[in-house]
Amino acid sequence: MRLFYAMTTQELVQQIHEKKSFLCIGLDVDLNKIPPHLLKEEDPIFAFNKAIIDATHHLCVAYKPNTAFYEAYGLKGWKALEKTIVYLNENHPEIFTIADAKRGDIGNTSTMYAKAFFEDLAFDSVTVAPYMGKDSVEPFLAFENKHTIMLALTSNQGAFDFQTKTVEGKQLYKQVLETSKSWKNSENLMYVVGATKAEYFSEIRQIIPNSFLLVPGVGAQGGNLQDVCKYGMNAQVGLLINSSRGIIYASTESDFAQAATEKAKALQQQMKLILEA
Amino acid sequence: MRLFYAMTTQELVQQIHEKKSFLCIGLDVDLNKIPPHLLKEEDPIFAFNKAIIDATHHLCVAYKPNTAFYEAYGLKGWKALEKTIVYLNENHPEIFTIADAKRGDIGNTSTMYAKAFFEDLAFDSVTVAPYMGKDSVEPFLAFENKHTIMLALTSNQGAFDFQTKTVEGKQLYKQVLETSKSWKNSENLMYVVGATKAEYFSEIRQIIPNSFLLVPGVGAQGGNLQDVCKYGMNAQVGLLINSSRGIIYASTESDFAQAATEKAKALQQQMKLILEA
Repeated sequence: MRLFYAMTTQELVQQIHEKKSFLCIGLDVDLNKIPPHLLKEEDPIFAFNKAIIDATHHLCVAYKPNTAFYEAYGLKGWKALEKTIVYLNENHPEIFTIADAKRGDIGNTSTMYAKAFFEDLAFDSVTVAPYMGKDSVEPFLAFENKHTIMLALTSNQGAFDFQTKTVEGKQLYKQVLETSKSWKNSENLMYVVGATKAEYFSEIRQIIPNSFLLVPGVGAQGGNLQDVCKYGMNAQVGLLINSSRGIIYASTESDFAQAATEKAKALQQQMKLILEA
Repeated sequence: MRLFYAMTTQELVQQIHEKKSFLCIGLDVDLNKIPPHLLKEEDPIFAFNKAIIDATHHLCVAYKPNTAFYEAYGLKGWKALEKTIVYLNENHPEIFTIADAKRGDIGNTSTMYAKAFFEDLAFDSVTVAPYMGKDSVEPFLAFENKHTIMLALTSNQGAFDFQTKTVEGKQLYKQVLETSKSWKNSENLMYVVGATKAEYFSEIRQIIPNSFLLVPGVGAQGGNLQDVCKYGMNAQVGLLINSSRGIIYASTESDFAQAATEKAKALQQQMKLILEA
């Protein structure tokens, strides 16, 4: 996050090499899972996020709050989301911030979503869904030095319901990747590809060799870091590996921040080895 | 909205016959488009919604705030959304309420979205996107007497990018309709089908004869009410026709509420004729 709270891909790549990490930490705060002593805080969600950020920011290059976990708590949740992004932007401008919102709507409505996440909340990027096509995504792409991360192949079982079905000779997620390359300002696109499907990365890289991929599914969902890197990494690294529950809920006791540091460090150390190889 | 702020399909159908209307009004509040004198109000968004609801509730059976227009204004916007749904639930419990949010995520995350819209905000229904498949939608379907309205064929140009492409011998939106019928609690599903594609309704009705369809695109987007009803109506009516901009921005002067009444009345009168035919 630099000029006008924006971050170029080059700056992100530089951060990856400086920190020897391409780790993204998912801030999916569930009040039933955080250490009970935090519930006494005025804003338990933000208190938890701040502690996690303070304990892990040197080991990761990105944070990704999933909006569902904030909306579930209504106004208090949205306020905690706002405080979290302000805290990140003010204290860690080198961090790439992702609003995991999976939005998408008709053109004028997508513009409102883009304003919500790029302007009002000042995130560097937002995740979007492709189902409604070009005019539902291009309003996001119109924002300079902001990044739009589109769902391609997700990490869940439901990915096999439609995404991997064959559309005119090609699997739907490949059609999505291919088609999106022709959209206006497509250089601002990144894609979500689940780590649970590491064998798909080679073919994905044939379609979008240069794009960054946001990769959920390492950890709790069972994806393998080495496999993802083997098939998915490009010359600019091109990967942001997300872990949420595996790091932030490593402990639910008073040592939760320390436990998060250790889990993040373990992943960062593996990434360091991969980057140096 | 009755027991625990829930509404059955039967109650919705009854409302349609009592009001002789299957009109849904989209509350897509853009502060650049509302009458300037409202900007002096403490909460201009809610003031606008309240005036529109007071002026039109006898002519429609549903209201549909699109969340993008609230999120774009941050905390103030989310608060206005909350006040709007509370106002509707407390003053017009006979109204069917739709959170047009187009959400969808992996299972545990979709559960948080469902809690946000069904429990925290107490909407009767929420719109969802199908791209992530079964386990991204079933968490919404698990809520009794709540309704999940899934995107099938949308009203925008981008619908032709993926939705109408052929997947294993059948267009994607038809695969979505067909596949979703086997999901758990699929009786809680409704579908979004755009009015701009009236010629598609006959084939859609062959797949889902009994489901309710939420139909955007009449009015500003150019869809035709008669054609939609001709091909899309079923024995239980089965249609909610949405109009947003055409009603709520009929005038941007001090007579905006009266103008909204007139536009809503014109649509309701057409619907009355169709219901009586």
